[in-house]
Amino acid sequence: MLPGWILTRDLRSLFDPRSVAIVGASNTPGKWGYWLGTGALLGEDRRSVYLVNRNGGEILGRDAYRSLAELPESPELVVITVPASVFDEAVEDAVNAGAKALVVISAGLGEGGPEGRAREEAAVERVREAGALLVGPNCLGVFDAETNLHLSSNSVPSGSIGFISQSGNLALEVGMLAGDAGLGYSRFVSLGNQADLEVAELIDSFAEHEPTRLIAIYCEDFRDGRAFARAAQRAVDAGKPVLLLAGGGTAASARAARSHTGAMVSDLVAVDAACAAAGIQRVATPKELVDVAAARLGAPPAHGRRVGVVADGGGSTVIAADLAAAHGLDLPEVSDPTAAAIGELLPPTAATRNPVDLAGGGEYDVFNFARVVELLLRADELDIVFLTGYFGGYSTYSDEHAAREVEAATAMAQYAKDLGKPLVVQTMYWRSAAADALREGQMPVYRDLEGSLAAIAALVRAGSARPGVVPELPPAAAPVEGTGYWAARALLETAGIEFAQAHRAGTPDEVLAAAEELGYPVVLKALALEHKSDAGGVAIGLLDAGAVEERLSKMATLGASEYSVERTAPLAEGIELIAGARRDPRFGPVTLVGMGGLYTEVLSDVAAALAPVDEAEAERLIRSLRAAPLLEGARGRPALDIAAAARALSIVSRVAAEHPEIDEVEINPLLVLPDGALGLDARIVLGGATHAS
Amino acid sequence: MLPGWILTRDLRSLFDPRSVAIVGASNTPGKWGYWLGTGALLGEDRRSVYLVNRNGGEILGRDAYRSLAELPESPELVVITVPASVFDEAVEDAVNAGAKALVVISAGLGEGGPEGRAREEAAVERVREAGALLVGPNCLGVFDAETNLHLSSNSVPSGSIGFISQSGNLALEVGMLAGDAGLGYSRFVSLGNQADLEVAELIDSFAEHEPTRLIAIYCEDFRDGRAFARAAQRAVDAGKPVLLLAGGGTAASARAARSHTGAMVSDLVAVDAACAAAGIQRVATPKELVDVAAARLGAPPAHGRRVGVVADGGGSTVIAADLAAAHGLDLPEVSDPTAAAIGELLPPTAATRNPVDLAGGGEYDVFNFARVVELLLRADELDIVFLTGYFGGYSTYSDEHAAREVEAATAMAQYAKDLGKPLVVQTMYWRSAAADALREGQMPVYRDLEGSLAAIAALVRAGSARPGVVPELPPAAAPVEGTGYWAARALLETAGIEFAQAHRAGTPDEVLAAAEELGYPVVLKALALEHKSDAGGVAIGLLDAGAVEERLSKMATLGASEYSVERTAPLAEGIELIAGARRDPRFGPVTLVGMGGLYTEVLSDVAAALAPVDEAEAERLIRSLRAAPLLEGARGRPALDIAAAARALSIVSRVAAEHPEIDEVEINPLLVLPDGALGLDARIVLGGATHAS
Repeated sequence: MLPGWILTRDLRSLFDPRSVAIVGASNTPGKWGYWLGTGALLGEDRRSVYLVNRNGGEILGRDAYRSLAELPESPELVVITVPASVFDEAVEDAVNAGAKALVVISAGLGEGGPEGRAREEAAVERVREAGALLVGPNCLGVFDAETNLHLSSNSVPSGSIGFISQSGNLALEVGMLAGDAGLGYSRFVSLGNQADLEVAELIDSFAEHEPTRLIAIYCEDFRDGRAFARAAQRAVDAGKPVLLLAGGGTAASARAARSHTGAMVSDLVAVDAACAAAGIQRVATPKELVDVAAARLGAPPAHGRRVGVVADGGGSTVIAADLAAAHGLDLPEVSDPTAAAIGELLPPTAATRNPVDLAGGGEYDVFNFARVVELLLRADELDIVFLTGYFGGYSTYSDEHAAREVEAATAMAQYAKDLGKPLVVQTMYWRSAAADALREGQMPVYRDLEGSLAAIAALVRAGSARPGVVPELPPAAAPVEGTGYWAARALLETAGIEFAQAHRAGTPDEVLAAAEELGYPVVLKALALEHKSDAGGVAIGLLDAGAVEERLSKMATLGASEYSVERTAPLAEGIELIAGARRDPRFGPVTLVGMGGLYTEVLSDVAAALAPVDEAEAERLIRSLRAAPLLEGARGRPALDIAAAARALSIVSRVAAEHPEIDEVEINPLLVLPDGALGLDARIVLGGATHAS
Repeated sequence: MLPGWILTRDLRSLFDPRSVAIVGASNTPGKWGYWLGTGALLGEDRRSVYLVNRNGGEILGRDAYRSLAELPESPELVVITVPASVFDEAVEDAVNAGAKALVVISAGLGEGGPEGRAREEAAVERVREAGALLVGPNCLGVFDAETNLHLSSNSVPSGSIGFISQSGNLALEVGMLAGDAGLGYSRFVSLGNQADLEVAELIDSFAEHEPTRLIAIYCEDFRDGRAFARAAQRAVDAGKPVLLLAGGGTAASARAARSHTGAMVSDLVAVDAACAAAGIQRVATPKELVDVAAARLGAPPAHGRRVGVVADGGGSTVIAADLAAAHGLDLPEVSDPTAAAIGELLPPTAATRNPVDLAGGGEYDVFNFARVVELLLRADELDIVFLTGYFGGYSTYSDEHAAREVEAATAMAQYAKDLGKPLVVQTMYWRSAAADALREGQMPVYRDLEGSLAAIAALVRAGSARPGVVPELPPAAAPVEGTGYWAARALLETAGIEFAQAHRAGTPDEVLAAAEELGYPVVLKALALEHKSDAGGVAIGLLDAGAVEERLSKMATLGASEYSVERTAPLAEGIELIAGARRDPRFGPVTLVGMGGLYTEVLSDVAAALAPVDEAEAERLIRSLRAAPLLEGARGRPALDIAAAARALSIVSRVAAEHPEIDEVEINPLLVLPDGALGLDARIVLGGATHAS
């Protein structure tokens, strides 16, 4: 066990059982019992395989057993693929037969509603009592390449990706794409409803699994989201990249997810916050997952975003350069000596500065590709080299061309390995001998520019990632009770936030007295209104008593029950942020910061992190906003006090973390000034959520 | 000829010559003369083919001619693949032999520098004098499927895409991807240096070409950009979608483009403006080009952005739904009757509202896919249906399954055709019999989600596109002479822009007198400074003479030679825009509008169009800004006078269009108020560009 690891159950019974029984085995192609039986028999040289069918007889050339009770020994792993109606009975039989691991394919249980969920829970309790574990139900099976364990519907290619998936189909799709790219699975577990075994426990197990070099996850329901993130962080720390395909971030997909696994889904903002904390790379599609996996398995992280692009053919370099720029990568001109060395190899019409266009110099001598790639790999001004376009196509000219091209490809791969820099290749001839030679040299090779650019971006990201830290939640503080403006202000002021001075006033006379005391101009807020500035519930810059009275009479018609009279803040000297936190059902409190005031909703320029965040992390979040230059003093304006804003954001995040009863807390606006940051409004929303672990 | 067509040359000699001669034919595989000779001979049943090599002898099994002069007849088309050094001679020989079309592969001419360009020009003059035309030089050849004309290095698949490309390699790459998708080229022309035949003329020719149903273009140098856009608009109007892969939008890619074809490249902002005007869809990669082409060739445009998603498997629907939302598509819940009808077909755990998860109902009866797709196609609340995931995989179960799945696929394609709505399919089994059946029914079928979503987005866009209008440039007005602040203001004020009242002042005394006359607070600008607000060259809100004097003394140290004293505008009541125009070397003046003030540079929220724009188009541009809600009255603020802003933008665009000597013109900020729009600053930059046609 790696140091610092939490105690997890031993999953050997699941991945390397000494015996397997398939309950519901069948002779009919297209049935689960057929696929599972056929798959299980592939591992017969390593373990006993028992096919169980209530009708007995011969199945797949073996004598079938009528029940688990008839087996000559205890089956270590039992796969259950019976109808949901007899699920409970099948689990009971398996436990009684001495099973240590159960894989339940049967659907129509927890995902169907409360009754099914109750049956699931009862079954899991029985399984755990017996010291066993259960995968599923509603899952697609388990695969382990090393132990020759094939217990799923379709065959998947072998390789070094450990895949944990809450969707069987996506695991198949990723498997097919991985196979095409020369990759495959070391292990695969279909999570299903996660009634017992959850994603976090599997990540820990995969992190310890030697043949697994990269962990990929498809998940809709993260269960204990912080435990998930901590497990992923341990895997990343142990040198295994973790890629996440997350489902359920939108209303429509959440609808689908709920009916599919009954999952409680998280906002993608919370998922991204967890990914940032744990060092997980999130991807959006099966293709992106495989494209990025190929890069992470084949190339070292890039130590910067400076890319050298090379092709024989102007169009290929031009399009690749445009696309690289669109991905936020830099294409610096190379130094004079490098350009000169490249120029010596190529015709006078070649572009030598980056991107490099061989201008026929590759067609003339295909080994020029290797020479140019080596020169670019050696250039200190580049962090990564991207070969794109036609390379691989010279093999079609003649056998001699093909041999020479393979030689060039092999040399390139060796240069990249020796120099420790990433080389990414895109070729329209991605099935050529040269492409195969690159793959044999473990270089990531792509058919399309999209995939190769995603790969390059992922390598750059991997090279610049900070060490992940999933924050611990502090002990819960005494719960807050009120939810109005004054309660929110009091909570945050006590925690250390500075607010604009305010007086509480119930009557017009009290309002005028308060205004007099604060000094004009004043701000007047009508309370007991949710979205004040939409309803005319906030008036700023009231210059005298007359102005206040005029506003009061308007506000009275809106049903204001109470007022806050506040000192006018120097709005023109600062920039408004919104600083807050929101509770996700799986990941707990998530800190949010964005441009405040009118711009918040219009520009959706928001950064998020798992709460609590310290001041340094809060400052990093603020500086990651697109609009951050406005705070930093754009166009000759004075720089604002970002440290004060970060302090305030850190405090808000701590309040959210200490108060599990708070669903939302928000300072909007938080006015960032040249010296300090001032809360101008506050809001809390209480909910019924329990404290995340 | 279609109505309204401009007169173009007859290109029959190029695409369907009665005879072809290959100058530089060769027996050596891997040489241009070999590929061209081999290709030309494929069309021998339709035309005479002559192989010419100065050494004579036997080439590719034919007696070779030593020169064009030896041929028994005039060659209608001559392909030249000799070294650049003998290019001029080869052209002369071809013209003397009576050639009507020349395709010049030879590189190292115009793209190499002025000397090569001069030789190109001389050759083109000679060719035109003889009533002939020339493709290239530095090109990859010509292909016409219908006339069996194969004059390029590699073979390309036949189909209905007409491809015009300034890069040979990209044409090959697109051809390979198209072939995989069951598509191909009707015609292909490699543009090379466009010394004679330019992209616009070819578009006109392709638009008239019956077998060409879609025109795809890769271009770095658009030559007369307006002529290009007008030709594309005619093709779109004639019912042929035009897709553009444009190269050279970034500094690095422009470096590559210049050395590759010596091209004068355009900013992508200008290219996008031309695309919007002409109804061209721009794509970023070869893959996207093919993905979108498949959609446009196989499906009608969608009449809205409401997508119905269906799969058998929750994960597939979840990921597709998330991705659709990320592409700005809507996934509305379907009506109760539709959901009920879907529910009747499927297990109780199915999701029936959209996305639809068959939850095993497709595995149970694969024809359920067709039934659900039909119900979704019939739903008025949906504009497009997207089937994703495993469909296609049931064919692997048994022959019976395969036959039934093909039947379902065929039925779906027929429903989509009958109902006139787009059906887009993504399947991990895209090489299955069912996928082939969909393709036979002309449905667009994709392997990856990325491609299918790009396709759906393209169909939505095609359905909502306005009829394209490429604006005509007005006659040039009398050129402006001054370039300072006063000249810019005068030009724009005369054209109809309202500016804040200003007085010109040379001395401190004049400044104070002007301030007195305008009334405090005033704005003070130090002139003869380029970026005023960076350098402290603009002071706003000066409340009295003391404040003015203080600022004057600071400005004096910055070397101000003159001042403008201006009336204070009601900044708090409005929003600042930047309204301007910039001249592109190929597309001429391009109108730009964006958020003004500090936000311009930080948020890069800019819209552009070919100038001039009328007020309606100007208003559309302004409303397309992400920050437009701020103008429209977000969060209870008063709506601003967008019509006045549009009027001002239209005027600026007209000024730019009438003044070819102006490289840049800009009102920044243009203050949009509840009633009117007020220019607060103005700038023009003169250049040496000539008037675009």
